[in-house]
Amino acid sequence: MKQLQVLLVAGTHGNEINGIWLFDEWKKSSFLINTYGIKTFKVIGNPEAKKAGKRYIHHDLNRSFKEESCLSINSSNFEERRASEIVYLYGEAGENPCQIALDFHTTTASMGSCLVVYGRRDADLALASLIQNQLGLPIYLHESDQEQTGFLVESWPCGLVIEIGPIGQGLLNSKIILQTKLILETLMEQIHQVKNLKLFFPNKLIIHRHIKSIDFPRDEEGNIDGYVHPLRQSKDWQELKKNDELFCKLNGEIIRFEEDEPYIPVFINEAAYAEKNIAMSFTKRELWDFQKEWKKSLIDLIHQK
Amino acid sequence: MKQLQVLLVAGTHGNEINGIWLFDEWKKSSFLINTYGIKTFKVIGNPEAKKAGKRYIHHDLNRSFKEESCLSINSSNFEERRASEIVYLYGEAGENPCQIALDFHTTTASMGSCLVVYGRRDADLALASLIQNQLGLPIYLHESDQEQTGFLVESWPCGLVIEIGPIGQGLLNSKIILQTKLILETLMEQIHQVKNLKLFFPNKLIIHRHIKSIDFPRDEEGNIDGYVHPLRQSKDWQELKKNDELFCKLNGEIIRFEEDEPYIPVFINEAAYAEKNIAMSFTKRELWDFQKEWKKSLIDLIHQK
Repeated sequence: MKQLQVLLVAGTHGNEINGIWLFDEWKKSSFLINTYGIKTFKVIGNPEAKKAGKRYIHHDLNRSFKEESCLSINSSNFEERRASEIVYLYGEAGENPCQIALDFHTTTASMGSCLVVYGRRDADLALASLIQNQLGLPIYLHESDQEQTGFLVESWPCGLVIEIGPIGQGLLNSKIILQTKLILETLMEQIHQVKNLKLFFPNKLIIHRHIKSIDFPRDEEGNIDGYVHPLRQSKDWQELKKNDELFCKLNGEIIRFEEDEPYIPVFINEAAYAEKNIAMSFTKRELWDFQKEWKKSLIDLIHQK
Repeated sequence: MKQLQVLLVAGTHGNEINGIWLFDEWKKSSFLINTYGIKTFKVIGNPEAKKAGKRYIHHDLNRSFKEESCLSINSSNFEERRASEIVYLYGEAGENPCQIALDFHTTTASMGSCLVVYGRRDADLALASLIQNQLGLPIYLHESDQEQTGFLVESWPCGLVIEIGPIGQGLLNSKIILQTKLILETLMEQIHQVKNLKLFFPNKLIIHRHIKSIDFPRDEEGNIDGYVHPLRQSKDWQELKKNDELFCKLNGEIIRFEEDEPYIPVFINEAAYAEKNIAMSFTKRELWDFQKEWKKSLIDLIHQK
């Protein structure tokens, strides 16, 4: 049996600095975070972007992990090269093979702390269930969005994104740092429990399933001409009813929610998403039965069967 | 008598986007903001930095307005060139001579809305008094700081900075936009009143006088190794007592306020100031008598005597 190794990433976006700062402090004081004896690799995803105080240099690194055939260590695009390098160094078949990737992000939206899973991979859902059971974190299932692909964690057999907010870009904050530390340690503890087969899975999982994203109102030239309505700002996870206010313009016009279904908005006014034409995303809240295949998949992965 | 002209600047820092957005909307709908018939010029301070989603390209534009002899339209430094250009176009002796400059900023600190005056120029203090009297805004008197010079408004005979927060960089927010609009209109209304000599000055002015700035705790290599204490975060304008918590480190160490005087902290954890080695600034709250020279200076300026 090969040794279990976990890849921990902070700063996949260079201006999300709380995780980077925590990792830097951790390098200085190895006792700072309990990894329950599991071998980990700590990586700053986009150190060049961090230096530049930006999300990325050429292209969003967390949209750059494409099919292996497209990855290129020789690309002139900095993030494509960096994605290849991280997979080369820490991929499942890399120099330091990792089976699980945990990617720590922050958001300017009032998301609190949450997990993001990409698609419906059994091991991801099992690990997310364990964390929801421990900390009650909401889970955002990102799927069916052809415009947003190439996420880092998808290049590992199991991987979660951890999103913590609200926090401005480039801003260090005690609450965000301590939340990051808590969730990191809880993830390591739960992986440790699975390794020792001392694991307790819940019967149900609450999922916020991605339905679609909506853009800001824009004028004829494509410029944003309305902002998030004050009644909607910072109201992530709070159900929308028909006719609820979404945006307003300076001329008093209000743009309302016109769907018949009661969607739950997430990532409301995430600063980095304006360039992606996303003002917020809509999800459906669903209660899923826990599937025993999820458990088997995670156990098999961690035990390297 | 020459015509009174007022220079209005937003986006002196490219990632403070609320003022820029308001000005862009205003360009589309001239009725949006009431300037009380006063001729204004609306300028985006650093449009290149705005495009790049950054505070500046080479150097902070709001530290680039040096003595005229140092200004250079041919500099290879983008912001030096831009500073020269703005003075050339809108300076007191420029193509479109303006006597007053109003510079709209935002901050990640919980400053609410406030005015910043640089040094003790009579006309600045008169205009700030009028606004404090109307809106109750605190006034931060920035002086005696040799490390921070070259502010835009100092290149005009009268000028104020308006700071509004908290808001993350690159983030549009209804509250910040509406505060910017309110303060801009109040400034124009008060200038209009002075023009018509229908002016009412208060007897007293509350000033927060800059004393000094303090840096984050740093390790031996100069890296930040502590963050703003949760009890201090977002507590701008709230008096510090000896032994109050300022910063903490992940090892539990707390750095405390050790001054004997009860300073008032401002700009706590402004994201852009970390590179300037400023975690927060200390001020003294003072009650000043209104001076009749201030009034005379502002009236003379506006009436072009």
